[in-house]
Amino acid sequence: MALAAVHENSLTAFENLSSLVADSMRLVDALIDDHLKSDIPLIEQIAKHIIYSGGKRLRPALVILASHIHGHISPSTIALAAAVEFIHTATLLHDDVIDESDLRRGTPTAHTVWGNTAAILVGDFLFAKAFELMVTTGDLRVLQILSKTSAVITAGEVRQLVESHSFDLSIEASLQIMGAKTAELFGAACQTGALVAGASDQDALDFYHYGYNLGLIFQITDDVLDYQVTNDARGKVPGDDFREGKITLPVIYAYQMATVEERKFLNQTMIELNQTAEDLNRMRHLIESHKGFEKSLALAADIMRQSQPLTHKQGDFKVLLNGLLRECLTRNK
Amino acid sequence: MALAAVHENSLTAFENLSSLVADSMRLVDALIDDHLKSDIPLIEQIAKHIIYSGGKRLRPALVILASHIHGHISPSTIALAAAVEFIHTATLLHDDVIDESDLRRGTPTAHTVWGNTAAILVGDFLFAKAFELMVTTGDLRVLQILSKTSAVITAGEVRQLVESHSFDLSIEASLQIMGAKTAELFGAACQTGALVAGASDQDALDFYHYGYNLGLIFQITDDVLDYQVTNDARGKVPGDDFREGKITLPVIYAYQMATVEERKFLNQTMIELNQTAEDLNRMRHLIESHKGFEKSLALAADIMRQSQPLTHKQGDFKVLLNGLLRECLTRNK
Repeated sequence: MALAAVHENSLTAFENLSSLVADSMRLVDALIDDHLKSDIPLIEQIAKHIIYSGGKRLRPALVILASHIHGHISPSTIALAAAVEFIHTATLLHDDVIDESDLRRGTPTAHTVWGNTAAILVGDFLFAKAFELMVTTGDLRVLQILSKTSAVITAGEVRQLVESHSFDLSIEASLQIMGAKTAELFGAACQTGALVAGASDQDALDFYHYGYNLGLIFQITDDVLDYQVTNDARGKVPGDDFREGKITLPVIYAYQMATVEERKFLNQTMIELNQTAEDLNRMRHLIESHKGFEKSLALAADIMRQSQPLTHKQGDFKVLLNGLLRECLTRNK
Repeated sequence: MALAAVHENSLTAFENLSSLVADSMRLVDALIDDHLKSDIPLIEQIAKHIIYSGGKRLRPALVILASHIHGHISPSTIALAAAVEFIHTATLLHDDVIDESDLRRGTPTAHTVWGNTAAILVGDFLFAKAFELMVTTGDLRVLQILSKTSAVITAGEVRQLVESHSFDLSIEASLQIMGAKTAELFGAACQTGALVAGASDQDALDFYHYGYNLGLIFQITDDVLDYQVTNDARGKVPGDDFREGKITLPVIYAYQMATVEERKFLNQTMIELNQTAEDLNRMRHLIESHKGFEKSLALAADIMRQSQPLTHKQGDFKVLLNGLLRECLTRNK
């Protein structure tokens, strides 16, 4: 019920949207293919393997919709959509290396080592290619916004490494980290998608704010679903965050209300990563009993209320996006 | 003597050059400081530590000289010089992680792990900041050239990982890898430095070719010096390449002429990294006896002969650069 409240609905709009996005996404995919070509076959193999490993192309879809709402989807829209997906994939690749390094489970195997090397270099390659694609829009504002966004994402990563291994992380700090790591790129995708379609700077900025909030809502909902979904319909295994000791919003809310005994359990399972088979279920009930999921979704709903559309265009955008967002959340990331 | 032949001389020009570059470099350093500011103190600390750890700012100097030769050093020159240094530092940081992973000497310590994480993220941060700086030039050609260069550098890294762990690497392939990893950024620094000072596209392209060749000569000479310098005047320990099993040009030349017994030694020390204290000296004599250094420097001299200046500007540039290059090679990288 809480989830339904977060995701407002417009099914017919969503069907139109799906075909619109699908048509453009075919162009995006063709452009991605084209830009992954390399004299070094290994780069192409690894990059394609990663780019086509089940990502739902949510961020490119934001670019496409933001351009669509402002009148037209041009070659610049398509280039920008591909660039945003490249930036997203590059940060995911580097994240994986970092998370692995931090967990340090035993000596790395040869495969793990090659994996790290490939992840670092293919990430760098995709990042460079993203900027090559952006240059083709001929719009320096796009480059300015997305280079700044890239720096903010990285700074968010560092902040997360420094601050987020503690249950004392405040809700505010947690939202800021989420903002840097996820919401900024959502916002930039909406803003730049609007700009290349001819939106005024102010209209595009309004779209940035809407996209930013959408990113927060997306991440909060995703963090809740990681505990609630019990099958693999989303294509990822539930409980990943728990197993990795990722201190998300539901966990912070639960910790704030937890007893001494429960805090001992939280420390043991999520900081020391000393977990047994039943611990995920116990964790789920612990969060539930302290209204961790409810509070997280209430915060997401609050953020949604704060970003009411001001104009007709923003209203249309919101309807389309809510449909898209639900689609993404019920499949996978 | 061979080294002296490679580095043509013009001492007076070099003294003028030093003060010109020094003045501009102060502005570059101030801009670097400014762009390393971050809400996350750790980023600033790590980035500054790395940026100020003894780099000789050779690539920014190329940008400055290329602008100077074409009439004036503007704020765009300074921004570009800082950006090129950021790209160079970012690639060095990621290189370190990759080299460390490949060697895999024992289980990583906590310090090593934090080092890797920091190196990846600070590298990404610097790369993003480089593009922010480039945007301030307002020149899309600069962004086009340097995003392409960044992709080529990464592709060169991957190619090196795949191909260069064998003595059978051809001279041509070795030059291509050197080209991608080192010479492209030298070329791009010269080309974009010229462009932002108002050079024509063709003049700038000529500067690119000159810079590219300069990069090859720089790298070849550096690889020779790694065996020949016996004190630490360059700020780096001689024999690093040997200890890391880096198969450079002098080694390839030596291997081509080596006896069965010598090839056994080369395999044991440079592939298996099974080395004793006297092996560096033995290696030096082995390369010397097969004219590995001589042939490498002759190739560098050939490349220099192929890039004769066509215009007065290119002639001036060459005189200034030769002085600068020698200065850099006799100190450190």
